[in-house]
Amino acid sequence: MSETTINAPANTPFIEVLREFAATPAQLFKVSTDPDLVAQWLGPNELEMEVVEYDVRPGGRYRYIHRDADGGEYAFRGVFHAIVPGEMVIQTFEYEGFPGEVSLEKATYTATENGVQLRVWSVFPSIEARDGMVASGMERGLNDGLDKLTALLAKETGR
Amino acid sequence: MSETTINAPANTPFIEVLREFAATPAQLFKVSTDPDLVAQWLGPNELEMEVVEYDVRPGGRYRYIHRDADGGEYAFRGVFHAIVPGEMVIQTFEYEGFPGEVSLEKATYTATENGVQLRVWSVFPSIEARDGMVASGMERGLNDGLDKLTALLAKETGR
Repeated sequence: MSETTINAPANTPFIEVLREFAATPAQLFKVSTDPDLVAQWLGPNELEMEVVEYDVRPGGRYRYIHRDADGGEYAFRGVFHAIVPGEMVIQTFEYEGFPGEVSLEKATYTATENGVQLRVWSVFPSIEARDGMVASGMERGLNDGLDKLTALLAKETGR
Repeated sequence: MSETTINAPANTPFIEVLREFAATPAQLFKVSTDPDLVAQWLGPNELEMEVVEYDVRPGGRYRYIHRDADGGEYAFRGVFHAIVPGEMVIQTFEYEGFPGEVSLEKATYTATENGVQLRVWSVFPSIEARDGMVASGMERGLNDGLDKLTALLAKETGR
């Protein structure tokens, strides 16, 4: 299985996530933007996922809730700024536990020799907010999600 | 007339703009979010301003065009992520001449002894994009706009 690369250069507000999948850019775009499919992979393994809304168009909003076994809820929301089907999605991202601390994410889907490379470039409103995201354990949750995404793509594409 | 402070620390993707106005936060919020009023102040003095849309709600979109005397057009667009009336607006910002280079702006309106302080905190997707914005002559256009905003507020408030 492909590995996730996470680059978070010191003293910057940036995070870059890279991962390759055995799929086409169009297939990766589909499982990343169809709410029923997003609900099947986004987030850590041990949390329940509820997609409240996921309206992928410029100005469309999204909101989803992760729930743990004790009933704890972690909700996230944002708006889509731009979408180029099969190529790119730009969206805002806010954890409702830290209202007003909003980051901007640009996901690009690029064909490679073996499939498609996902690159997500996130920009945080401060270096401290970026460091807080890294310290929150995002790496494990991200890897869980991208592993589930890999499995879902295999099912969808038959590869 | 109040002065504009622009902070753009070296080797960061941030720009902070500060300016004080003789008005209340609610009055500054109004002239910053009512499309008919925004059309009267936003942008450099020598350019015509057309507000195409300016839909200030979460997920609402905006687009405006600056035109010079030779018919040159400079269009800008984005979406609103969050609005707290009288307190805060968070929105994306894209110059259509550089599609995909999107920044995120957080404007806050804070009561002061003499009126209200506007603070706009912008985060760019790279240090180079931030440096390009500073080099583009944003300071003059920004000062023009905020001077017009000051005059408009004086008319609106009678102060």
